[in-house]
Amino acid sequence: MTKPIGGAGLRGQSAGETALCTVGKTGAGLTYRGYDIAVLAAKAEFEEVAYLLLYGKLPNVTELAAYKTKLKGMRALPEALKTVLEQIPADAHPMDVMRTGCSMLGNLETEQDFAEQHDHIDRMLAIFPGLINYWYNYSHHGKRVDVVTDADSIAEQFLWTLHDAKPDPLHVQVMHASLILYAEHEFNASTFTARVCASTLSDIHSCVTGAIGSLRGPLHGGANEAAMDMIERWQTADEAEAEIMGMLARKDKIMGFGHAIYRESDPRNAIIKAWSQKLAEQVGDTRLYAVSERVEAVMWREKKLFCNADFFHASAYHFMNIPTKLFTPIFVCSRVSGWTAHVMEQRANNRIIRPSADYTGPESAEWVAIEDRP
Amino acid sequence: MTKPIGGAGLRGQSAGETALCTVGKTGAGLTYRGYDIAVLAAKAEFEEVAYLLLYGKLPNVTELAAYKTKLKGMRALPEALKTVLEQIPADAHPMDVMRTGCSMLGNLETEQDFAEQHDHIDRMLAIFPGLINYWYNYSHHGKRVDVVTDADSIAEQFLWTLHDAKPDPLHVQVMHASLILYAEHEFNASTFTARVCASTLSDIHSCVTGAIGSLRGPLHGGANEAAMDMIERWQTADEAEAEIMGMLARKDKIMGFGHAIYRESDPRNAIIKAWSQKLAEQVGDTRLYAVSERVEAVMWREKKLFCNADFFHASAYHFMNIPTKLFTPIFVCSRVSGWTAHVMEQRANNRIIRPSADYTGPESAEWVAIEDRP
Repeated sequence: MTKPIGGAGLRGQSAGETALCTVGKTGAGLTYRGYDIAVLAAKAEFEEVAYLLLYGKLPNVTELAAYKTKLKGMRALPEALKTVLEQIPADAHPMDVMRTGCSMLGNLETEQDFAEQHDHIDRMLAIFPGLINYWYNYSHHGKRVDVVTDADSIAEQFLWTLHDAKPDPLHVQVMHASLILYAEHEFNASTFTARVCASTLSDIHSCVTGAIGSLRGPLHGGANEAAMDMIERWQTADEAEAEIMGMLARKDKIMGFGHAIYRESDPRNAIIKAWSQKLAEQVGDTRLYAVSERVEAVMWREKKLFCNADFFHASAYHFMNIPTKLFTPIFVCSRVSGWTAHVMEQRANNRIIRPSADYTGPESAEWVAIEDRP
Repeated sequence: MTKPIGGAGLRGQSAGETALCTVGKTGAGLTYRGYDIAVLAAKAEFEEVAYLLLYGKLPNVTELAAYKTKLKGMRALPEALKTVLEQIPADAHPMDVMRTGCSMLGNLETEQDFAEQHDHIDRMLAIFPGLINYWYNYSHHGKRVDVVTDADSIAEQFLWTLHDAKPDPLHVQVMHASLILYAEHEFNASTFTARVCASTLSDIHSCVTGAIGSLRGPLHGGANEAAMDMIERWQTADEAEAEIMGMLARKDKIMGFGHAIYRESDPRNAIIKAWSQKLAEQVGDTRLYAVSERVEAVMWREKKLFCNADFFHASAYHFMNIPTKLFTPIFVCSRVSGWTAHVMEQRANNRIIRPSADYTGPESAEWVAIEDRP
């Protein structure tokens, strides 16, 4: 009955259909519903892309305005959710906070019927930036930040609730591009988690809670945090080069390079790299961007390894005064659009995802009374 | 690159290896590490079976005593977790409570290293019965139940913390069998969720939180609750037969029958059915067990459909005064042993689970400026 697979981890095996995304069809490209990622990141707001993924087409002027107004009205944190977030200590893993906050929201605003799915999804998009920053500000600074802001967008809302102040317009622009780059990526492990959960016809908060848990894993999300931890150790590009050469010699793992699917380059890298450079100029950085560029050059020269989406995100986020531990939660604020688009797609054409396994255990075992066991 | 699959939902596709369980190898059987489920349910305590799954062998007298002592010492709920549970309203879905409670535990007692995995797993086994019953008693009766009891086992702990009283020994015996029957079932959707999450090298609480979310789905857990809702509507076996005939004629879905893998019978049914009968005699029931038996007979006569593990669980749990809404959380208290055994197995031989998808969307799409969109 069970067919053997070519590789472990279901690599190269189709686990279903999607109309949302192509990854690396020519070895390099990324499209959302057919639109090239470079065009979307250059020309769209994040809300347009979320709308494209969730509602199937780019919104016109009226639709986009209505959508942003809807999202703006959905930012308030329920009191019970605030109380929960205040119970979580400052040294908790921020992805555990996101996972718990999303799960708690499901207790307070439970999806009772799939007909409600769009409203619950939009609510998560609207509330997640304030959710994580409420916890961050409370646990780290003892401050109950007001998450009902005048921010025009999710991008602005994230920065506003983090710093409790209206952000720099350039930073908002970078956040739009960043959220667009991270929004969707086909059947990656967290999205696949959401689809497996959805295939049992479970509720939308279960699907997203599970996806957050998978994104938390160091083999999945978190590469931008690891890249940051690495590059901030070095004072000059020359020091970075010497250290990277040492790491390569010791066969250390260097985060932010290469990709499971892309073969030639990650199409998201050039986009975020350009923004990182612009931010470096704005803040007068003479170190971190130069270090990052040199690491990129050395990795290509020595190993023909290219930067993935995460590498220049590290310096870009850092230039906007975003604490490193919040990098992966930003990924959640973006990817929730892709996850939930996949959940809706799974629900629309569902069969429970229940694979088989190759059994490697004992054929049979004889019961031995407990007194007689060795 | 992408190979087409025979059926949707990865049916019949191997997604990895396991030494934990065989399901339906001869169309009927179920074994845990080679031991027949009927032997385990008749002769073992649940803690022996959990130990078998988690530590690889049946414990001897000393090992079992030490294991039970360890679990007994791990029952207390952290204050912050109690506060979180007290924020969750009585009309929440109990599986959302389990999911949130598990996730919150991960904030307070984070797995920092896989070397700690056994302690976190044992902690979940020990704490889950009290966790759900603390919420249940607080939200439904305004009562803060003491979860640090003298109960000898997880089976007894569940009943004790639910009813805030030392339970009937027969009920404890039935709970042991029930927990054993639900402990493990190969690559079902919730277990597969846990393995996908584990494959990103995420933490143990993320894996279990995700699995709870998948078990919540009506195509997965919850069949015993649906069976209960059905059988308690009928006063006599004759009424049940008439109603079932009507439901079959209308092609209504009848919960608690048939199985995705088993073809001839579910080996767990006879075991829980015998316990349900014993409990019916104890409580002097003349209705629910007779109704259940008749439904079983009619379904077999009319459709050659057999009861699965869930059907006689409904009446058995009901005879022990367990509220219907807590049936699936009991499943969690048991299956967490199987889920976490799979997580450990995945970690020991890991590759990230990242399948491909068949793309059905547009080949390419041209950007249109927002002012020009229809």
